[in-house]
Amino acid sequence: MDSPPYKWTATQALEYLKNDTISVEAYAQSLLDRIQERDRTIKAWAHLDPELVLSQARLLDKVPIEKRGPLHGLAIGIKDIMDTKDMPTEYGSRIYDGHQPSADSDAVAVLRAAGALIFGKTTTTEFAVANYGPWTANPHNPKHTPGGSSSGSAAAVADFQVPLSLGSQTGGSVIRPASYTGVFAMKPTFNAISTEGQKPCAPSFDTIGFFARSIDDLQLLADVFSLKDDELPKDISLDQISVAVIKTPFWASAECGTDRAMENSISVLRRNGIKVEEVSFPAEVSDPKVLGRIQDVIIQSEARVSLLPEYRLNKAKLGYEVRDIVQNKSNMTQEELRNAYDRYTEMRVIINDLASKYDIILAPSAVDDAPVGLDDMGSPIFNTLWTGFHMPVINIPSSFGPWGMPVGVSLVAPRFNDQQLLRTGKAIGEILMADGKRRRKDAEGLWNMDCFEEYAIVHGEQTGQCVP
Amino acid sequence: MDSPPYKWTATQALEYLKNDTISVEAYAQSLLDRIQERDRTIKAWAHLDPELVLSQARLLDKVPIEKRGPLHGLAIGIKDIMDTKDMPTEYGSRIYDGHQPSADSDAVAVLRAAGALIFGKTTTTEFAVANYGPWTANPHNPKHTPGGSSSGSAAAVADFQVPLSLGSQTGGSVIRPASYTGVFAMKPTFNAISTEGQKPCAPSFDTIGFFARSIDDLQLLADVFSLKDDELPKDISLDQISVAVIKTPFWASAECGTDRAMENSISVLRRNGIKVEEVSFPAEVSDPKVLGRIQDVIIQSEARVSLLPEYRLNKAKLGYEVRDIVQNKSNMTQEELRNAYDRYTEMRVIINDLASKYDIILAPSAVDDAPVGLDDMGSPIFNTLWTGFHMPVINIPSSFGPWGMPVGVSLVAPRFNDQQLLRTGKAIGEILMADGKRRRKDAEGLWNMDCFEEYAIVHGEQTGQCVP
Repeated sequence: MDSPPYKWTATQALEYLKNDTISVEAYAQSLLDRIQERDRTIKAWAHLDPELVLSQARLLDKVPIEKRGPLHGLAIGIKDIMDTKDMPTEYGSRIYDGHQPSADSDAVAVLRAAGALIFGKTTTTEFAVANYGPWTANPHNPKHTPGGSSSGSAAAVADFQVPLSLGSQTGGSVIRPASYTGVFAMKPTFNAISTEGQKPCAPSFDTIGFFARSIDDLQLLADVFSLKDDELPKDISLDQISVAVIKTPFWASAECGTDRAMENSISVLRRNGIKVEEVSFPAEVSDPKVLGRIQDVIIQSEARVSLLPEYRLNKAKLGYEVRDIVQNKSNMTQEELRNAYDRYTEMRVIINDLASKYDIILAPSAVDDAPVGLDDMGSPIFNTLWTGFHMPVINIPSSFGPWGMPVGVSLVAPRFNDQQLLRTGKAIGEILMADGKRRRKDAEGLWNMDCFEEYAIVHGEQTGQCVP
Repeated sequence: MDSPPYKWTATQALEYLKNDTISVEAYAQSLLDRIQERDRTIKAWAHLDPELVLSQARLLDKVPIEKRGPLHGLAIGIKDIMDTKDMPTEYGSRIYDGHQPSADSDAVAVLRAAGALIFGKTTTTEFAVANYGPWTANPHNPKHTPGGSSSGSAAAVADFQVPLSLGSQTGGSVIRPASYTGVFAMKPTFNAISTEGQKPCAPSFDTIGFFARSIDDLQLLADVFSLKDDELPKDISLDQISVAVIKTPFWASAECGTDRAMENSISVLRRNGIKVEEVSFPAEVSDPKVLGRIQDVIIQSEARVSLLPEYRLNKAKLGYEVRDIVQNKSNMTQEELRNAYDRYTEMRVIINDLASKYDIILAPSAVDDAPVGLDDMGSPIFNTLWTGFHMPVINIPSSFGPWGMPVGVSLVAPRFNDQQLLRTGKAIGEILMADGKRRRKDAEGLWNMDCFEEYAIVHGEQTGQCVP
């Protein structure tokens, strides 16, 4: 408890909140102070009303200890494409300026029912579809993007403004910003969490995910959302864990930061006695052009349906990316969509079967560390396939790239193995993060990200170039 | 124009409304009068505010002729699981008593943007999941159910209270009530219409559909929702049409009304020179127990996720069917779900490929005519497979069952052939309905349903037993 409350992980804060060591109000005030100090730089919030936060906090403080929910008083940022009954929801779109939903989205309702403090709405790109939008900055260096489309959810957690946040991923909008901002994140199995009350993009890809600063914190949310494997997760001793390294058919896009992150991870795992095997996708799934096009066709064709109402009602207020999709500027045919669906479902079975032969897959989380500039939000190329294959993914913020910015790796499991992924991921994550050069524990034994800047300065690597 | 406005099909009404032969207000008043006369018996409406209807109608009357939308002034009933910004939306659930959304669902927004008169909310079962609920009656005999879950949408159209309505189908909630109430209905290709703003049940099955009293009226809505095939639909001469009769693996469930409807349809088509071939599903899809269980596992597992928030917030106000699903009373495992997804996607490809060898599939719409009693809403067994295979379906109200009540047949096409299905379905539908014993044209040349009662009396068949 020596560190200020805003620095606590959710798991730490929860303990203190549940036993009244700190009131929800005082905890919320610490976060609000942090935000006030940092918001001008980071701009993670599409909507934040300190008075509402404090009044909700005081209500939670009145809940008797024995009636407190599993997330009692924990502050959670909500991506602004998910409806909240007490805060505006603008979907990153000018069409919805000041729009006030009358009900919580399903995911927000579950969090609120668990006693969470719904803190505010985090920035998103337009309908979480476009790749431009909010001027949110990366806490590790505000000249860099935090990634998108869950920009604010990643930045707010990375910057200690809230311990937890919800995001959503159609391509790579949870795992990529987590990699860019150096936090943990989880994209669960597809449809394990209801997306009702959330603006859809491509319903067969859209998946809710969450950001946190520890795997234990991800676990809190996984439990509240009732993510369930058939069997209780078990601890596997390190020498029994088998890891498949899958660089994916898109590996040619990887830059040096990601190359290093993968190589470092592989050697760290091997040093710890873990069996690591490099595995390629079978021939049916290995052509990057075919795989990429199939994903584009499905996502854009579905988004065309999702965005038709906005196009009909208010075309002039749509950004060009969204307009082009509804107008089908790329001339995608229904036949191509039908074939894409059928090929892709075959691929999904093949890759899930492949994954089930290993305890876990190690894969890249992003092309490199976060690009410079707030208008380029980076590429989801290493994420979209796992989203479409409906497999759960965790980002481990394990490494640093050529700009001295964070680079993560993805741990991936077959569908409906979310709890085992968290369990095995925690063991592997500890090892990856303990790799001395990258991260260190603070006085309380917690992984601390303050060393980022120091590391970058020591290594003099803020150049964007990998040195040999 | 001799018949009162409430009797007009949407296509007729549209012509008169667009050229000011009748005002939207006068048209709406005719429907309201009809409803006032019939509502005590039929109970199709969860919410209907005549003042709101008339004030909206007057606003539409102020739109200059050249600016009128493609559905100008057409009254449309909306199933009460779809959000409406100006009317309460209760999802058939006590939890949402008086709940007022702040925005239209995507589908309602598209209709409103096209100038439709959003008339009122039609009754539904609880969350469109349960098989009990509203006390809506079948207009052909109020002792019989109109079917569910889109009970009110089917009954209101069948009873001439509105010409058009929206429903939704997870199992058979559009096609079955259409069959029971003797109207036309269309369930388009999966995800051809956005389900945003609609309470989800099983997102990989949930499909919006519509009810009408002619195929031309279905066509109006298909066009407004931008249903598009790759090629423009073409007229096929009768002797060139190939029809596959697919009684489905569930045929053993068919009762005599459906048996006759299929046999009559086959002989009428053959008499008209249409090639008709009876086709079985291939072995991989032909076991009714396997197919049925796969569908149950997917629908119930997905519904468990969709209904978690309501369970967490207000368990005591949920009906037993919904509670049992969230509590997973049938002990469905994730492994079974994973296998169900994979088997089912294989089946989807097989059946769509099979369908593409014919112009159209003829299949049963329901087990029989509508059961007696308002608490048994009938079985979706002949519908769920087409919903899950994502194929467009039209109900043709072609026949009568042992209770003297309507029985329809389904016309089915491969995915993304919605427009061709409408075109070929119109030609085939005319033939099926022209079958003298069943239906007749009125003075204006329109198919008229007034003969139902007369037919039933003449044939003395209101017994529930098929006579040889």
